Amino acid sequence: MTLPLNQLGIVKRTITRADRAAVEKLSRFGVATIHEAMGRVGLMQPCLRPIYSSARLCGTAVTVLLQPGDNWMLHVAAEQIQPGDVVVAACTTQNQDGFFGDLLATSFMARGAKGLIIDGGVRDVKDLTEMNFPVFSRAIHAKGTIKATLGSVNIPVVCAGAQVNPGDVVIADIDGVVVVPAALAQQVADAAEAREANEGDKRAIFASGVLGLDYYKMREGLAKAGLKYID
Amino acid sequence: MTLPLNQLGIVKRTITRADRAAVEKLSRFGVATIHEAMGRVGLMQPCLRPIYSSARLCGTAVTVLLQPGDNWMLHVAAEQIQPGDVVVAACTTQNQDGFFGDLLATSFMARGAKGLIIDGGVRDVKDLTEMNFPVFSRAIHAKGTIKATLGSVNIPVVCAGAQVNPGDVVIADIDGVVVVPAALAQQVADAAEAREANEGDKRAIFASGVLGLDYYKMREGLAKAGLKYID
Amino acid sequence: MTLPLNQLGIVKRTITRADRAAVEKLSRFGVATIHEAMGRVGLMQPCLRPIYSSARLCGTAVTVLLQPGDNWMLHVAAEQIQPGDVVVAACTTQNQDGFFGDLLATSFMARGAKGLIIDGGVRDVKDLTEMNFPVFSRAIHAKGTIKATLGSVNIPVVCAGAQVNPGDVVIADIDGVVVVPAALAQQVADAAEAREANEGDKRAIFASGVLGLDYYKMREGLAKAGLKYID
Amino acid sequence: MTLPLNQLGIVKRTITRADRAAVEKLSRFGVATIHEAMGRVGLMQPCLRPIYSSARLCGTAVTVLLQPGDNWMLHVAAEQIQPGDVVVAACTTQNQDGFFGDLLATSFMARGAKGLIIDGGVRDVKDLTEMNFPVFSRAIHAKGTIKATLGSVNIPVVCAGAQVNPGDVVIADIDGVVVVPAALAQQVADAAEAREANEGDKRAIFASGVLGLDYYKMREGLAKAGLKYID
Amino acid sequence: MTLPLNQLGIVKRTITRADRAAVEKLSRFGVATIHEAMGRVGLMQPCLRPIYSSARLCGTAVTVLLQPGDNWMLHVAAEQIQPGDVVVAACTTQNQDGFFGDLLATSFMARGAKGLIIDGGVRDVKDLTEMNFPVFSRAIHAKGTIKATLGSVNIPVVCAGAQVNPGDVVIADIDGVVVVPAALAQQVADAAEAREANEGDKRAIFASGVLGLDYYKMREGLAKAGLKYID
Amino acid sequence: MTLPLNQLGIVKRTITRADRAAVEKLSRFGVATIHEAMGRVGLMQPCLRPIYSSARLCGTAVTVLLQPGDNWMLHVAAEQIQPGDVVVAACTTQNQDGFFGDLLATSFMARGAKGLIIDGGVRDVKDLTEMNFPVFSRAIHAKGTIKATLGSVNIPVVCAGAQVNPGDVVIADIDGVVVVPAALAQQVADAAEAREANEGDKRAIFASGVLGLDYYKMREGLAKAGLKYID
Repeated sequence: MTLPLNQLGIVKRTITRADRAAVEKLSRFGVATIHEAMGRVGLMQPCLRPIYSSARLCGTAVTVLLQPGDNWMLHVAAEQIQPGDVVVAACTTQNQDGFFGDLLATSFMARGAKGLIIDGGVRDVKDLTEMNFPVFSRAIHAKGTIKATLGSVNIPVVCAGAQVNPGDVVIADIDGVVVVPAALAQQVADAAEAREANEGDKRAIFASGVLGLDYYKMREGLAKAGLKYID
Repeated sequence: MTLPLNQLGIVKRTITRADRAAVEKLSRFGVATIHEAMGRVGLMQPCLRPIYSSARLCGTAVTVLLQPGDNWMLHVAAEQIQPGDVVVAACTTQNQDGFFGDLLATSFMARGAKGLIIDGGVRDVKDLTEMNFPVFSRAIHAKGTIKATLGSVNIPVVCAGAQVNPGDVVIADIDGVVVVPAALAQQVADAAEAREANEGDKRAIFASGVLGLDYYKMREGLAKAGLKYID
Repeated sequence: MTLPLNQLGIVKRTITRADRAAVEKLSRFGVATIHEAMGRVGLMQPCLRPIYSSARLCGTAVTVLLQPGDNWMLHVAAEQIQPGDVVVAACTTQNQDGFFGDLLATSFMARGAKGLIIDGGVRDVKDLTEMNFPVFSRAIHAKGTIKATLGSVNIPVVCAGAQVNPGDVVIADIDGVVVVPAALAQQVADAAEAREANEGDKRAIFASGVLGLDYYKMREGLAKAGLKYID
Repeated sequence: MTLPLNQLGIVKRTITRADRAAVEKLSRFGVATIHEAMGRVGLMQPCLRPIYSSARLCGTAVTVLLQPGDNWMLHVAAEQIQPGDVVVAACTTQNQDGFFGDLLATSFMARGAKGLIIDGGVRDVKDLTEMNFPVFSRAIHAKGTIKATLGSVNIPVVCAGAQVNPGDVVIADIDGVVVVPAALAQQVADAAEAREANEGDKRAIFASGVLGLDYYKMREGLAKAGLKYID
Repeated sequence: MTLPLNQLGIVKRTITRADRAAVEKLSRFGVATIHEAMGRVGLMQPCLRPIYSSARLCGTAVTVLLQPGDNWMLHVAAEQIQPGDVVVAACTTQNQDGFFGDLLATSFMARGAKGLIIDGGVRDVKDLTEMNFPVFSRAIHAKGTIKATLGSVNIPVVCAGAQVNPGDVVIADIDGVVVVPAALAQQVADAAEAREANEGDKRAIFASGVLGLDYYKMREGLAKAGLKYID
Repeated sequence: MTLPLNQLGIVKRTITRADRAAVEKLSRFGVATIHEAMGRVGLMQPCLRPIYSSARLCGTAVTVLLQPGDNWMLHVAAEQIQPGDVVVAACTTQNQDGFFGDLLATSFMARGAKGLIIDGGVRDVKDLTEMNFPVFSRAIHAKGTIKATLGSVNIPVVCAGAQVNPGDVVIADIDGVVVVPAALAQQVADAAEAREANEGDKRAIFASGVLGLDYYKMREGLAKAGLKYID
């Protein structure tokens, strides 16, 4: 998508969401597994934390670029949500105000949203938890926001250090948040599945006392690197 | 209150607490609502977090100014607590030592305290949680403190970025901590009530699929600001 | 232990663990009590937090020095674990990658480890919690690591601001992490016991309304320091 | 000053500035000396740093409460500046945007301002340095701001952890920023002068090799506290 | 550019650099001006600071994705540098090791590089300063790095919160770092020029005492927003 | 050294300083070189910064363990300084108060101290700079301290993440602070010298356009690791 000079004040209505089956398949895997399947890239920074420990989500990104202290664009974004989407909100500067609360969550749920990723603050956390609406945020902060300045909806954004394009798959759990480019969703899902299958028996093996040193055949490499055992 | 040159080493015994009925009324509302009712001011910084997620408190402030690594003044403050008070402890410098634990909490509860807000650290968190004594702190830290240097009790303090005068109302929940000046307690309580009443039906409306864009009549403002929808 | 010029690439197999009975006795006390019994030293920084709130551990240290983004040495360390050990992992630089997950935890448990202290990140937190394997870490982060560069096992390390020698006792609970030098384990355990005994009745006394001001006879000291009560 | 319920949207035109002679006298002392003369209170947090190392200021406060990402109120404040004033800008939430640059500095200088203290960001730092306009800020950030939401001018604010009332004296140098309540300006200036006089000869004494241990007669106190010298 | 599943281990040799004349024109303006000309987007976070205060650069981006504690890819990148390029180095995780020093700087200068932007640490700062090689980094840190793991060169990266594509224009000065997409370079340069021209006389106007309130005709807007002047 | 249970309240008068010739030799090398010569260990965290950019020091450590907000032990330490020593001050908890200023510096200089490393704050920075007394600190802060609680002098301490024993060599420059164990001083000095000699011609080679890729023969390793060049 070629953006005009001023990237603010834009709502893109038509976005290409990742393949639904691939998203469904990705939803079966944890964030750590998916990130490994992509070659260890795609993670947001660990400062984003779930508002309750069992929060978990997987869906296609509707992206939002917010202005500091202003949540106008979250209202605009609500209309663009389709069932299965996750709203991913970045901000033009670091800001921890409480951009999002129970009323917006009610709207988002009514549209079929799977949750929210926000590089900012949220509030009404008790309500959001009771509603079982998963949010991953940089802060919990009661600070209210205004509705005065335009940002954008469904443009590429950088959220907590990760590039997110509208339609990308976003998966989040207690280990963090990972972004899978829409075009790679199926490949990554397959790679994650292969990885998981391969991991299947390892727990039993390690539980039996076999060491990773032997299972992964690390001893030679360690010796070659110069590891010395002393008493 | 006109303070002498040296503001340290003072305990003010007589303070004017906010009207009891107003405090009671304020206790019915959440921090986000109250902060909005005051025009979006009065919040402490979001670095203060509850030691357990259901912690909640509302009461009148007994203020304390601590010295780093020294909790002597919390003992002095205990005697000034009246039923319904919340102790609000600031420090002359940033310090995360564990100024407060289960024994002081036992004393505070015996005096009728509703909880503690501290711009510092606390310890004995397991005990405090079992005692159901709500604490909002900057850190959890086992580090013990000494009793060697004077601070003050019931002077105006700045705690986590908010000015607190003795007798002010302090309300805290998972969304944060808000301070209501004693003289405004009734007005703020009324404003919060009005706000809450007004919010009453909104959840149902948004749950039905009505968008904030329409409910709040934002479309005209957005268009005027130049928002462009593209495909 | 005199280390060679290059402290990296070493695994010390024979370490002197603290006396088992002393470790056992230390396991009965909380971190705050033990740290006080040592004269208020030995704590790690409060940035280390438990991955679940009931996490608790006490054991003898197997130390690890990691390289950033590399968990090779955790595999090497696994072989050095004896029942009752706690792995204490430092890093040559600040790094929050997810060095540790459920597979390593399975290995560690199979060897009898009591838990992990890591000045870095961990992942698979849901699994670790279900396994009831206590971890105290600086971050939760899905970011995977490689196995390419040597660190060391069982050399003295600095972890989250505390010096840890192999064999030292490490105790951790929700209040933090404390390190007891192996040679002092029995003395500290005894001092902790004495302290705890002495604390025994205090809760009842304070619950009855007696103030610390009187119980600890602080009033004279406060007056001497110049504390002034005003109305 | 009793503020109405909503503290935002107010400009107080008449403020009582600290006595000019006292301000003049205070300008002769460093921040460390003045803060000691007040009994070690009144400092802002050390996150505020000068934009160039020789920046220094002393003047009476015109206070500003900003909204995040919005510098409208700095324009409003400009009109309230009188010669000898220092603008002290706080924000309703933590925000590091570049609220202030060379054009506002030109206006402020034209009104006789002595400098700016801002709990936020500034930009055009090269110009500001060439203009020799001292600014103490939390960040340097090119991020521009808008002019959309009301804050206030000349209400009490909390700036970087310190309470500032309009008319108070603010002194800043490389060691930090200190606030002297207007009513105490003369007393503090006198105390600072006494302290400085007393400090006069100390440098020569210590340069001659006399130790603080002896000059301040600390040895007895140290021994009493239990200090042990070992070999 | 469509990247394969694994984005690591790639060096793109052919990149489309922004138009040379546009880059030249952009080099005439400051970061704050350029960022305004783009509608207040494109800035990196303010944690990136110049290693000496007069550091300044403008050039086309050669991007690098580093692994933590590993600077192998900076050597690979050196070969891709063409005269007028700026190396922009991101990392797969937050890491402040000293990835870059005087020897790499010598290589970069020999290739015609204009400087380095790195979301990590640098060392040999005294030498770099004497060489007058501008670096903007998150930290100064002597910590050395290894050469063991592949990252990539000339793939899109996120550096200090900003998306950078190879060939984009990067401009940095004491106010921060801004990225101009290659396709917009000419437009932004023109907009910056227009903005600068417009700013031309303002300093003289404000120096004469005219207020922004009047020059920008803010009084009506402020009154409409409800600003109240009180005495 | 076996410390008693309580490590506080101790001054060790007799310490074994590193060999003077080795210290002298180490003073010729930069921090980055020395840290490499030790195998990339021994660095303090990069949060310690020089108070002026040309600050540089090399000497033998007199260690201090401070209590928060209390600089008593710096006075005690002054008496233990011998010509060529560097005072290394740690604190029992994180604290940024201004523990040190021009008067202590005068005493330290009179005793022959080469400078101060402090994991805390300093003040009187203008004076210290004029005195050319190098200080590396975590903060600059005018906040004064008291003299009430014992710490220790010349016990092993952890300062900014590095273990320091009394008598160790400490070298600091703009790249950071490194600690060389006394017993390794000569070996490290020799290794640093060898490293520097070896680096001698590299600058000229790289300046001539030879790439590190070729000079270090990296191409094969990169290919083996799977690096792919694409157009």
